[in-house]
Amino acid sequence: MAQINKNFEKLPGSYLFAEIARRTAAYQEANPDASLIKLGIGDVTQPLVPAVIEAMHEAVDEQGVAETLKGYGPYEGYDFLREAIRDHDYRARGVDIALDEIFISDGAKSDCGNIGDIFAKDNKIAVCDPVYPVYVDSNAMEGRAGEYDVDAEAWTNIHYMPTTAENGFFPAIPDIHVDIIYLCSPNNPTGTVLDRDQLRAWVDYANDNDAVIMFDAAYERFITEDDIPHSIFEIEGAKSCAIEFRSFSKTAGFTGMRCGYTVIPHDLVRQGQSLNEMWLRRQSTKFNGASYIIQKGASAIYTSEGKRQIEETIRFYLENARIIKDGLEKCGLQVFGAVNSPYVWCKTPEGIGSWEFFNRLLEEANVITTPGAGFGPAGEGYIRLTGFGERPATKEAVSRIRRMLS
Amino acid sequence: MAQINKNFEKLPGSYLFAEIARRTAAYQEANPDASLIKLGIGDVTQPLVPAVIEAMHEAVDEQGVAETLKGYGPYEGYDFLREAIRDHDYRARGVDIALDEIFISDGAKSDCGNIGDIFAKDNKIAVCDPVYPVYVDSNAMEGRAGEYDVDAEAWTNIHYMPTTAENGFFPAIPDIHVDIIYLCSPNNPTGTVLDRDQLRAWVDYANDNDAVIMFDAAYERFITEDDIPHSIFEIEGAKSCAIEFRSFSKTAGFTGMRCGYTVIPHDLVRQGQSLNEMWLRRQSTKFNGASYIIQKGASAIYTSEGKRQIEETIRFYLENARIIKDGLEKCGLQVFGAVNSPYVWCKTPEGIGSWEFFNRLLEEANVITTPGAGFGPAGEGYIRLTGFGERPATKEAVSRIRRMLS
Repeated sequence: MAQINKNFEKLPGSYLFAEIARRTAAYQEANPDASLIKLGIGDVTQPLVPAVIEAMHEAVDEQGVAETLKGYGPYEGYDFLREAIRDHDYRARGVDIALDEIFISDGAKSDCGNIGDIFAKDNKIAVCDPVYPVYVDSNAMEGRAGEYDVDAEAWTNIHYMPTTAENGFFPAIPDIHVDIIYLCSPNNPTGTVLDRDQLRAWVDYANDNDAVIMFDAAYERFITEDDIPHSIFEIEGAKSCAIEFRSFSKTAGFTGMRCGYTVIPHDLVRQGQSLNEMWLRRQSTKFNGASYIIQKGASAIYTSEGKRQIEETIRFYLENARIIKDGLEKCGLQVFGAVNSPYVWCKTPEGIGSWEFFNRLLEEANVITTPGAGFGPAGEGYIRLTGFGERPATKEAVSRIRRMLS
Repeated sequence: MAQINKNFEKLPGSYLFAEIARRTAAYQEANPDASLIKLGIGDVTQPLVPAVIEAMHEAVDEQGVAETLKGYGPYEGYDFLREAIRDHDYRARGVDIALDEIFISDGAKSDCGNIGDIFAKDNKIAVCDPVYPVYVDSNAMEGRAGEYDVDAEAWTNIHYMPTTAENGFFPAIPDIHVDIIYLCSPNNPTGTVLDRDQLRAWVDYANDNDAVIMFDAAYERFITEDDIPHSIFEIEGAKSCAIEFRSFSKTAGFTGMRCGYTVIPHDLVRQGQSLNEMWLRRQSTKFNGASYIIQKGASAIYTSEGKRQIEETIRFYLENARIIKDGLEKCGLQVFGAVNSPYVWCKTPEGIGSWEFFNRLLEEANVITTPGAGFGPAGEGYIRLTGFGERPATKEAVSRIRRMLS
């Protein structure tokens, strides 16, 4: 009898977006004339920039000619892209990363999920609350999370670190020992960032405890404040304790293209083994490289033209986020994020829960948001809005919310 | 202290292609004028067909316009591709597969490697010998293989099934109980196929033992003989015991594009759980869909134009394989494969080992092959050649080998 992975049976249903879709559809059916505006989505809406489009057309043409056909590529990605990353994402910020510390993949989600392959089952995981569900679910599948406690909405063997307005969205350094810590800055879903001192505290903890930090920097390109680190490797000592995940999804609109990368420094050694070498072995065994065409497209964002173009798109999303934040603040709401992130994290009015506020916004303002409680218990009392919409719809949504609350 | 996955430490180095490259480079350095012909490669050399190129250009253009931009796609792939697969790869052969039994991915290698996520550690694995290394290494990483015995070149907890000329390349039904069986037909590396009766014997064994067959059909498009099954689901009862892996890599030259798919029937239930639902959960947690552009390219091979074009390329590779097989047989060698496969599996002359014959072909004929021993102990006494070269080089290589052996 083939034995299944019993950990899958412990996973609770992922009801958040399904439940939002259900409530939205029910409302729309009852109110066919209502014009709903979606501000809950995390997907991009602006087209890929011309430099990327052009590079992909060229790459497609190369694949149509024997002399320029690219077959199997390097498991770890093409050097043309790794060199661009090394120079522009790291060296330009004073961080020295070697080419073979960079692994190109089909996206940060795959890497965040698959990285568990190189770790033992016996590790204590720490995550922020609220949290991007992939960190938790992938560890639960691998048997590191313990049992799911429905009442607590939490896994018994995961250490949760609440990040709320009360603690300035800083996950407290734990007084227990943890082995693997997931940090995300700029944060999904809260839109807040960790500053240099906060990251240094975590790097020190990880080095002192031989722990490993999984640093998700998928939204780094949205950082506008000068003193906020874009990479954990800007912090001294991080190379011996951190893995960094990056994405082209929001940076360059690649959500449907699939490309990201992971940096694992050679200095990151645990139990005598180089995690860089382990990941190379994992990738060469269970992955066959990212698509050549997509890697060519990604490399185009590092040209001066490409860089200018993607910055324009990012400014557009950030301006949407600013419009939302300003509008909600004028209603007297407490609002976080938006400054270094496309995400706006808004405290619900006193005494109103996440789902209740979601419902009111849906029914009274016809605006769709995401209830913070869906990202974890400490997300209760917040809703998430995003800057990924169109400008007129974003402005209209803000006006409606202001009318509703006035 | 973060604990690493200690199973990685047990993995032997994968020296095969590195060792071939080393010997080749050393010979070329000592003989700079020698013109080497590579017939060992498994990568494609013919360009992608015009229908695929055109479809990808269109898809790239769509990504440059907001109205047609595709962001996050379905985890399990777009319906336009799944419908084409269902209709052309299955329904056209009398096999009824539902849309939601088809999962599009970035390649069969990823799926073959990642499928282990849904199974427990406690399963007895069976593989053919010689074997595509991904099946073995991915299970070894997950702790199912036991210890690696250097002398036996085998893992202590894996059941190896020799497939050689002596048993007609049929992996014998074991007299012990095994839980997960990897079968590959047309086979990599031997180029041989399993017929209907042979597959039926395995399906019956799997159903009788509640085992699961991992059926790798990456090379099915090379089948030329009418009575050879293209899918294990052509065998009655297979839906309750088999998972099938398919690839666009060799079918349509997608080795650098990255696209494949996996079929998991709803009838495949173990310990009360649907493996289809478990895989959907795995993919939605640790994968974010295959690239839209690449899926559009893949769907173009199902148009009448695209189908005609890829068949032409496949005939070209098969003709190369036939030329190699005929030439070697005329030298008195015993040759397998080639008829339903781009791979030619050639018995070495009496008393000459794989690596010794590889060396002679390199030094005396300047032809690079792959020693069969590199795919497992039962591959000793064979070499693999492939039809993926250019026509003149393929013919020249065969002439040189004939001169060498005459």
